[in-house]
Amino acid sequence: MAKKVVIIGGGDAGTYTLEAIFKKGAEALKQFDITLVKREKGGSSSICAVPLALQGFFSMKDVTEVDPPETFIGHGIDYRTETEATGINLENSTVSLDTGDELNYDSLVIATGRKPRILDIEGATLKGVYTMSTIEDGEKVESAMKTPEAKNAVVIGGGTIGMQVAIAFSKKGLKTTVVIGHQTPLSSLLDPDMGSLVHEKLAKEGVVEFVLGQNVESILGDGAEVKAVVVGGKEIPADIVVISSGMLPNSDLAEKAGLELGETGGIVTDQFLHVKKAGKYVSQVYALGDCVEVLDAITLRPRLSQLASTVLVQAKVVTNDLLGGSYPLEPALSPSVATISDFQVGTVGITSATAERYGITVISGKKEKPTKARFYAGRKSMAVKLLFDAYSERLIGAQLISEEMVADRIDGLYNAIRKGMTAKELSRMEKSFDPCISLHRDVMVDAMDNAVVQFKA
Amino acid sequence: MAKKVVIIGGGDAGTYTLEAIFKKGAEALKQFDITLVKREKGGSSSICAVPLALQGFFSMKDVTEVDPPETFIGHGIDYRTETEATGINLENSTVSLDTGDELNYDSLVIATGRKPRILDIEGATLKGVYTMSTIEDGEKVESAMKTPEAKNAVVIGGGTIGMQVAIAFSKKGLKTTVVIGHQTPLSSLLDPDMGSLVHEKLAKEGVVEFVLGQNVESILGDGAEVKAVVVGGKEIPADIVVISSGMLPNSDLAEKAGLELGETGGIVTDQFLHVKKAGKYVSQVYALGDCVEVLDAITLRPRLSQLASTVLVQAKVVTNDLLGGSYPLEPALSPSVATISDFQVGTVGITSATAERYGITVISGKKEKPTKARFYAGRKSMAVKLLFDAYSERLIGAQLISEEMVADRIDGLYNAIRKGMTAKELSRMEKSFDPCISLHRDVMVDAMDNAVVQFKA
Repeated sequence: MAKKVVIIGGGDAGTYTLEAIFKKGAEALKQFDITLVKREKGGSSSICAVPLALQGFFSMKDVTEVDPPETFIGHGIDYRTETEATGINLENSTVSLDTGDELNYDSLVIATGRKPRILDIEGATLKGVYTMSTIEDGEKVESAMKTPEAKNAVVIGGGTIGMQVAIAFSKKGLKTTVVIGHQTPLSSLLDPDMGSLVHEKLAKEGVVEFVLGQNVESILGDGAEVKAVVVGGKEIPADIVVISSGMLPNSDLAEKAGLELGETGGIVTDQFLHVKKAGKYVSQVYALGDCVEVLDAITLRPRLSQLASTVLVQAKVVTNDLLGGSYPLEPALSPSVATISDFQVGTVGITSATAERYGITVISGKKEKPTKARFYAGRKSMAVKLLFDAYSERLIGAQLISEEMVADRIDGLYNAIRKGMTAKELSRMEKSFDPCISLHRDVMVDAMDNAVVQFKA
Repeated sequence: MAKKVVIIGGGDAGTYTLEAIFKKGAEALKQFDITLVKREKGGSSSICAVPLALQGFFSMKDVTEVDPPETFIGHGIDYRTETEATGINLENSTVSLDTGDELNYDSLVIATGRKPRILDIEGATLKGVYTMSTIEDGEKVESAMKTPEAKNAVVIGGGTIGMQVAIAFSKKGLKTTVVIGHQTPLSSLLDPDMGSLVHEKLAKEGVVEFVLGQNVESILGDGAEVKAVVVGGKEIPADIVVISSGMLPNSDLAEKAGLELGETGGIVTDQFLHVKKAGKYVSQVYALGDCVEVLDAITLRPRLSQLASTVLVQAKVVTNDLLGGSYPLEPALSPSVATISDFQVGTVGITSATAERYGITVISGKKEKPTKARFYAGRKSMAVKLLFDAYSERLIGAQLISEEMVADRIDGLYNAIRKGMTAKELSRMEKSFDPCISLHRDVMVDAMDNAVVQFKA
């Protein structure tokens, strides 16, 4: 008899789990009787692409309808949209729905995603103040920024989403200010010196204005409509405000069911993504995606990793475990790449700030120069910062900024960090070279050499 | 007192050794009294760029004058051009020159490079028949292909140089035929199925014609001038013929001095690049570059690795050893990337043919599809083949073909091979993702997944 699987959530986590099962083939799929419930309308969507859709790289429709429900129904999935799971009963192995129905499960997959951190500031509920965590948020902001009244925008928060939304406003012709509590943008991804490069690039080109190192005091309204944001006693005019102050795990349902949450607020799981209750892992219940916390591969401490790439791997682990295979999840390095204006920011491993928090002394190597041969038309510069643990001499983090592709280099550095490669080892590595394209003294090799000389021979 | 260092050869091997010493700083440089002797005129040049200069990516002058002699003289090097070393006396620690001079050395660096394999076929010395191993060869071929009489060209050999020279002829408007003994081009780099893709791309676009799986019988002349190439009893008209049948180590001087050569004909060295005489390594004499053989990192058997990237690492090892540091050379994986027409071919590790020769059973994963998001303007396809050892499940080779950049991916796979990553391990790796650019089901992940299912769970 087929095993009843219930998946709660139809974002990336739920969708990738389905896809990973489909990829195992028709025989594997036949072993399961799968129901997916999701609160939202429609099929799978790509939340992380919403700020980029606002920028016009593609339409909001492209993002909201990656796969329609029919795709999943065609595979035999009971795919229920606009249906919310309201409770999980672990004793009876049931899930209650807002429709009044109750689903029995043999295996349960919790994929409830994330929710925006709400700032406790006056005026946060005024008309014209938005957060940015769902497709609906994206649609609302898209409408608002297109009205003729929209002239001034303020984005609160300097993470990837905040920066990308600010650039969307700027592209649309709005005077845009980003208010950031830290001294530099993208501070969870980049060291201050690298974050400064991002700041300089955007400020120089007049893309957005920055207010750095200060927090918003209040948001002012003209009646029910937003009018300004107050920072440092000064009013910044605003017809649109987006609060993008980070995402929290949406672990409410899990918490209500008595599952353990970690220090990050994310659901605690073992390396097979089994949830934990009363000190014991529950083998028939999984959680994955933005609602869980992961183990950091460098510090071995829990943290969040709310990335599509993280959940893609987690979905494989859950699927293999459902099928009885052994395939543990590795601690996370969270390689990421984000398009910011006309350049990309790529990171992997930890930053200097994280290293300091955990008592890791860092030796870093930096370099900025073109990656391509001098003959190469339209070559661009790349800024590289590599972080090494002073004690083990291992690579523990990398930060790249360039108008060129950085993703493939980040993925290569990921392998190096994952396998504990040291500065000396890396500086001895062969590097593919083509005189049409490459420089034999590549920017990454230079950065490594600059680090190596700081270690004792 | 400064240590007398003599470097024989001013190609990449000699030049990179100088550069590696310069990079150690003025204090390090002061410890040495360096003489470099080279047979050629002028400063450092980039031999591997010559076929690409023929294609017009850059001028032959760009290639021949990367750094003029003054660059090196300015660093205090006794840089002697048009000067040939004629003998090495290991007992007296001297090098004889064709000028009649004799140089004393404390340390000697042999960097004598490579020479073309000469085919023993009739007509190989006719006017209009060239090899392609020096800047002078490039200059001669460039003159010849520009004459109005040049209408038909034949290239003998289907390696990187042969293919690049053939494409240069084709671009210049010559009817071009490539004669290859193997069934597919680039057979030392690519498996037959991947080599076929190269063949198809070039044949479909009418870039060059191929005669595959046959050897040239003779070259015919009209008097002293080349007229045709005979293959399979048929005459192919030819005003220019380039013989590109591989490169041999130029180890004559080393052999004459009694140094050991390996089964490849390359000079034998230890992991610090010390040469070997009468069963013992000689600590004050180094050899590096195209004249030495390396250990293959997968098979642990000797082979050649005549790449700029190989010697760049070797130069660091020699320099560190000269300065008393400990820094052994790792066995080689020889990552390489070559521009072939409008696409790139990237490889690292061994091919299926090499695996078979050494009794390694291969499980491979293949995939061809775009690497970029569907919104990405002008996205191109990439063909990927990954080779895994069926026993250890480790990645042992990778082959990529695309109109997009493949170098950064090759360098990432290099790390994976170097550190013994298995198919299962790789399929669990996180991969950076940006919705503007990436596909979350990347072509390399698909290729890995296709391999993984062939291993037992």
